[in-house]
Amino acid sequence: MAIAKHQSLSGRSPLHEFLAPDAIAIVGASADPTKRGYKAMVGLIKDGYAGDIYPINPKADRVLGVKAYPSLEAIPGKIDLALICTPAATLPGILAECGKKGVKGAVVLASGFKEVGPEGAALEEQMMTAARAGGVRIIGPNTSGMFNLHKQVNLLALSNVKPGHVGFISQSGNMLLSLVLEAEHNRHVGFSTYVGPGNQVDIGFNDYLRYLGEDENTHVATLYVEGFRDGERFLEVARDVTAVKPVVVYKSGSTEMGAKAASSHTGALAGSYAMTVDLLRQVGVSVVQNSDEILPVAEGLAQLQKAPGKRIAVIADGGGQATIASDRLSEAGLELAELSDATKQRLREVLFAQASVINPVDVAGSTDADPALLATCMEIVADDEGVDAIFLVGMFGGYSIRFAEHLLGDEMRGAETMIELAHRIDKPLVIYSLYAPVKPPPLRRLHEAGLPVYSSLELAVRVLAALGERGIYLKGAAEQVPAAPVVPHADQLAVFAKAQAEGRDLFEVEAKALLRSHGISVAEEILVESADELGNVAAHFGDQALVMKVVSKDILHKSDAGGVKLFLRGEVALKDAHEQIMRSCKAYLPTAEIKGVLVTPMAKKGTEIIIGVSRDPIFGPVLMFGLGGIFVEILEDVAFRAIPLSRHAAESMVNQIKARKILEGARGEAAVDKAALVDLLLKVSSIVSAYPQLAELDLNPVLAYDDGYAIVDARIIVNRKDAI
Amino acid sequence: MAIAKHQSLSGRSPLHEFLAPDAIAIVGASADPTKRGYKAMVGLIKDGYAGDIYPINPKADRVLGVKAYPSLEAIPGKIDLALICTPAATLPGILAECGKKGVKGAVVLASGFKEVGPEGAALEEQMMTAARAGGVRIIGPNTSGMFNLHKQVNLLALSNVKPGHVGFISQSGNMLLSLVLEAEHNRHVGFSTYVGPGNQVDIGFNDYLRYLGEDENTHVATLYVEGFRDGERFLEVARDVTAVKPVVVYKSGSTEMGAKAASSHTGALAGSYAMTVDLLRQVGVSVVQNSDEILPVAEGLAQLQKAPGKRIAVIADGGGQATIASDRLSEAGLELAELSDATKQRLREVLFAQASVINPVDVAGSTDADPALLATCMEIVADDEGVDAIFLVGMFGGYSIRFAEHLLGDEMRGAETMIELAHRIDKPLVIYSLYAPVKPPPLRRLHEAGLPVYSSLELAVRVLAALGERGIYLKGAAEQVPAAPVVPHADQLAVFAKAQAEGRDLFEVEAKALLRSHGISVAEEILVESADELGNVAAHFGDQALVMKVVSKDILHKSDAGGVKLFLRGEVALKDAHEQIMRSCKAYLPTAEIKGVLVTPMAKKGTEIIIGVSRDPIFGPVLMFGLGGIFVEILEDVAFRAIPLSRHAAESMVNQIKARKILEGARGEAAVDKAALVDLLLKVSSIVSAYPQLAELDLNPVLAYDDGYAIVDARIIVNRKDAI
Repeated sequence: MAIAKHQSLSGRSPLHEFLAPDAIAIVGASADPTKRGYKAMVGLIKDGYAGDIYPINPKADRVLGVKAYPSLEAIPGKIDLALICTPAATLPGILAECGKKGVKGAVVLASGFKEVGPEGAALEEQMMTAARAGGVRIIGPNTSGMFNLHKQVNLLALSNVKPGHVGFISQSGNMLLSLVLEAEHNRHVGFSTYVGPGNQVDIGFNDYLRYLGEDENTHVATLYVEGFRDGERFLEVARDVTAVKPVVVYKSGSTEMGAKAASSHTGALAGSYAMTVDLLRQVGVSVVQNSDEILPVAEGLAQLQKAPGKRIAVIADGGGQATIASDRLSEAGLELAELSDATKQRLREVLFAQASVINPVDVAGSTDADPALLATCMEIVADDEGVDAIFLVGMFGGYSIRFAEHLLGDEMRGAETMIELAHRIDKPLVIYSLYAPVKPPPLRRLHEAGLPVYSSLELAVRVLAALGERGIYLKGAAEQVPAAPVVPHADQLAVFAKAQAEGRDLFEVEAKALLRSHGISVAEEILVESADELGNVAAHFGDQALVMKVVSKDILHKSDAGGVKLFLRGEVALKDAHEQIMRSCKAYLPTAEIKGVLVTPMAKKGTEIIIGVSRDPIFGPVLMFGLGGIFVEILEDVAFRAIPLSRHAAESMVNQIKARKILEGARGEAAVDKAALVDLLLKVSSIVSAYPQLAELDLNPVLAYDDGYAIVDARIIVNRKDAI
Repeated sequence: MAIAKHQSLSGRSPLHEFLAPDAIAIVGASADPTKRGYKAMVGLIKDGYAGDIYPINPKADRVLGVKAYPSLEAIPGKIDLALICTPAATLPGILAECGKKGVKGAVVLASGFKEVGPEGAALEEQMMTAARAGGVRIIGPNTSGMFNLHKQVNLLALSNVKPGHVGFISQSGNMLLSLVLEAEHNRHVGFSTYVGPGNQVDIGFNDYLRYLGEDENTHVATLYVEGFRDGERFLEVARDVTAVKPVVVYKSGSTEMGAKAASSHTGALAGSYAMTVDLLRQVGVSVVQNSDEILPVAEGLAQLQKAPGKRIAVIADGGGQATIASDRLSEAGLELAELSDATKQRLREVLFAQASVINPVDVAGSTDADPALLATCMEIVADDEGVDAIFLVGMFGGYSIRFAEHLLGDEMRGAETMIELAHRIDKPLVIYSLYAPVKPPPLRRLHEAGLPVYSSLELAVRVLAALGERGIYLKGAAEQVPAAPVVPHADQLAVFAKAQAEGRDLFEVEAKALLRSHGISVAEEILVESADELGNVAAHFGDQALVMKVVSKDILHKSDAGGVKLFLRGEVALKDAHEQIMRSCKAYLPTAEIKGVLVTPMAKKGTEIIIGVSRDPIFGPVLMFGLGGIFVEILEDVAFRAIPLSRHAAESMVNQIKARKILEGARGEAAVDKAALVDLLLKVSSIVSAYPQLAELDLNPVLAYDDGYAIVDARIIVNRKDAI
């Protein structure tokens, strides 16, 4: 009986062949209890693995009573998976053997490859060559191992690990142990497949995630990640998987100190944490920020209905914890649902006069003599259309311990009501009980029926937040059509080609022309190559205040070179400015090749925005949005999204930054035109998708107004590599 | 055997008389198991209370076998404490009886007083009158009750609560239950005294805290607070108590949503959360921000050495958790200690080659065959002078479970080494083990020896942070001489008197003169009452650019009234400006009484600072410091300190704000003169202490420079009440 519905991706990842193997060889099988080759044998035998086990040990006829073989070659049958327990130096040879024997996957425990230096890197290359030649896929190296409990494949020989529906991929073996112990002692979940991806020389997080997405025994894919290798591909897979089942990621390296430690651990680049979190959330991943949250959130997402929104009804039997719940909900970005008058009336009818029927509902003693009334209150608020999730807070399960034994019957009745309610409604019931550590019968009943009971109010709120985020993501996901690429103009392609040929980036005037040609509103600019044209230019712009800027591929910092003049009106001023600019730029860099000057109307004052695009080595093209000045430089208050953006992604990034209050018109100023900014972000996304020649783009600043915006400066860095 | 030393305040709070009572009356004692009057009787009898128990019940001769009395009057002996289980309406009469009988304290369970409206308020007043007349102190009303386990006074009749050294005062009864259950199932601590202060009509948090400070059975005072009544007094008491033992406070209402819920729960104003936290930390309180942290932090502070600083050495047996530890330490403001070459060399000698001896130390398998080596590593890093605390992270205690049973002996040996080390050094050992839920013998041994073992890495880091903060506070506390009040000038007192008589606040010129007279650097200003003086004024200031501002008690917003002119040079400009100001101010408010204009040199550009003082209804005079503009308005990035400030407090508030990077010269600008700002804060503190007539003070903006500062605007609000 499950409360959440479970779906999986269709498709057949090649990983199934060896993560659910029918025959396993243990290279380095041993009778020495301290060896991994012993433990793996014990794990397979004890758990009753139904496939074939082939110990490889040239010095023994049998290992733990199982016939041993001197080599892979000597094995009569086919082999799906090889666990290789021997040192790094043996790996190229063994993998060549694996290839010959048709082994599909190898778990490589050894470390001592690229992470230790050039010699290790050479060894790694040899191993990979052998593996590729023989078509053998590699788990690891430097992996803690794997298990698939639904196939009784327990290569880690963990003794108290229960089969269940949490799939776990972890670059930390200790983290697996920690979750297993937590599951055993404090939760009611078990595991499906575990893999330690180690240094990911071959199979990466994206491959494992697709496998878990397809695996019907996995109801939630849970990942502890120190570093991604192919982040761009991971995002694609995650988008597919989150559409059918929850994906929980804990990413370490949230601080510089942690990122340093992580990179010395796995040799992977940690990447920017804030960016990684934004990109994962963009594709519907539930990111948890503390390791304590991993299992509770995974359990909640696997077992409970997602919430259709953020409006939580709290039912509490103590005012203090009602207050704490309110604080934590608010900090998590959730809201206290406003209960309808009808709901309040119904609550009043069942509760004492001193109870508070304004959310958070505090029963104020009403349930001391009948704890089943808590379930009744949950039923009442569940009927309210303004409620997206129900949060029970307090002593439920412990009334018979705290007050009187005869209350146990009422509590069991209450538990049944809650279970029935959970199956009836499309909203989650999240239950925190301070008696959870005691595991009294009513709470055991809830657990067994698939309703988790949390022993921490704070962790329960993390679960509520994850359920709400997932519900909101899935509602929005259907409309998430990513912005299509523009069609590149032949003349713009020529501009890139010219810049590449000349070994330079685009001139500002070219960058702006590109943007303009693709429908982005950029103020008119005139490139003036000779002072003689200034009369016409002055006439053209009339009374507007103008800016003049030098155009030269050799001058990067125009202001420093005296290459910018402001507040110019009329021909005389323009000519004066032109002369000064030419003089100071030549003084600044006598060898500079000066193409001319750019004349454009001065932008009126507005809110300074920065939009930047770079091609991240892990995640591919990424767009950054934020306010200028201290917001980006001091507060690092920026949002990231992978390109291409959907409208939903563009809107959410504008609303994510802390400085959104300024965009919304704090400090007595008018709100800016968010719709125009969203439109701009989508257009930038479409342009970047269309031009692989574009390596980086910076619009800094964009001035946002209450109607529209002005792009004051635009910079496009050209990809200097010919082949893209 | 204790690892931390334990001290208490000398002194004798009147609360001892009834919180450690020799005779207790139960008003409303009952044989009905659902009644509090029954439970309290059971609690006293079962726990073996050695004093006299007097049930009061006019309808029974005996209650639970104990002789009952019809009234308090009928009791032969003296009574220290009365537990009153009857409804609100009975309280005035019963308290009058208590007074006659010489009862020293009464626990009032009933609710239904001021929190329910005017009738309840009247009842409360009657109860208080009776209590005061008879000299009876009141715990509550609306209290969950109290216990003193070292006197076997268990009025709550909790069954599994263990005597110990955590004193707890909580406005939430559920929170007590929650901590008791947590202590029973996951920790090794017990409790000394618990009190629910309820609505604090008489005894408040400050009184309870002093009692816990004096109580030798209490090693840590722990408080769950929804609202303080007399915060100013609480800070004084807390300063005394934190000097001898740790004080842990969880304050609810950290968000607007939570504050609203709290105020409906206890009727107390929650107050500004950010301010409350700053003021509590100023007096050495360990503030925890999650309810999950309360007991772990209390346990750690009670049992472990405080840390002399923030430099942590991490010993981990897994790279993943070493990374997580680094992230959490960094987020908590702690540092990874830089190990000396000698330390690294010694670690290398005991660990495998692949181990990382750069902090976080990752033993990388070295301890798999000898877990006692972890203790050796702890001994090695403990010798390093650059290490303030040692953090063990990983599987310790579970090696015999995970690897081989024979390792149990090594683990026990390791545990003994850790215990011996803990007693030898002045640095804390904080231990996180993923096997903590299993409670294996090595971890039980550590617990029994007074070394807590945490089952959450994240909570262990909170403990480390609290130990570090406490150590640093106590090091600084000795020099914490609060700034002495200035001696008020007779003429300045006259200025206040005049303003009070005229029913106005100080004019800006008066406010600035006050500041200047007490040694604060304020630019010269000339009050010009007639245009004829402007020639001399112009001559006086020479070539400087000047500002002219209107002086009128009737014009609050000078700029709006056209009452401010900038960039004035020379007599003509001054006269022009004067005429314009007079004209527009008269147009703005024809009835305005205009005293003249103020002329002063324009301040050069600098970093905008705001300094504000208000008299908080709960905490008394409080100083606020922050950067101007968006920092205060949008980001609420400000620091608070209670007045008087010590130099340490002033320095810490300048360094607390997120925008300190700007003060330190981010964005290519020069760092501001922090010493001058600290000096200014101390002077403001001294002035506010000396003038009770001063209700509020605002220096906004102060412009901070690389040498000194300029006070551009100063506003002093006068206390309009005559008697202060």
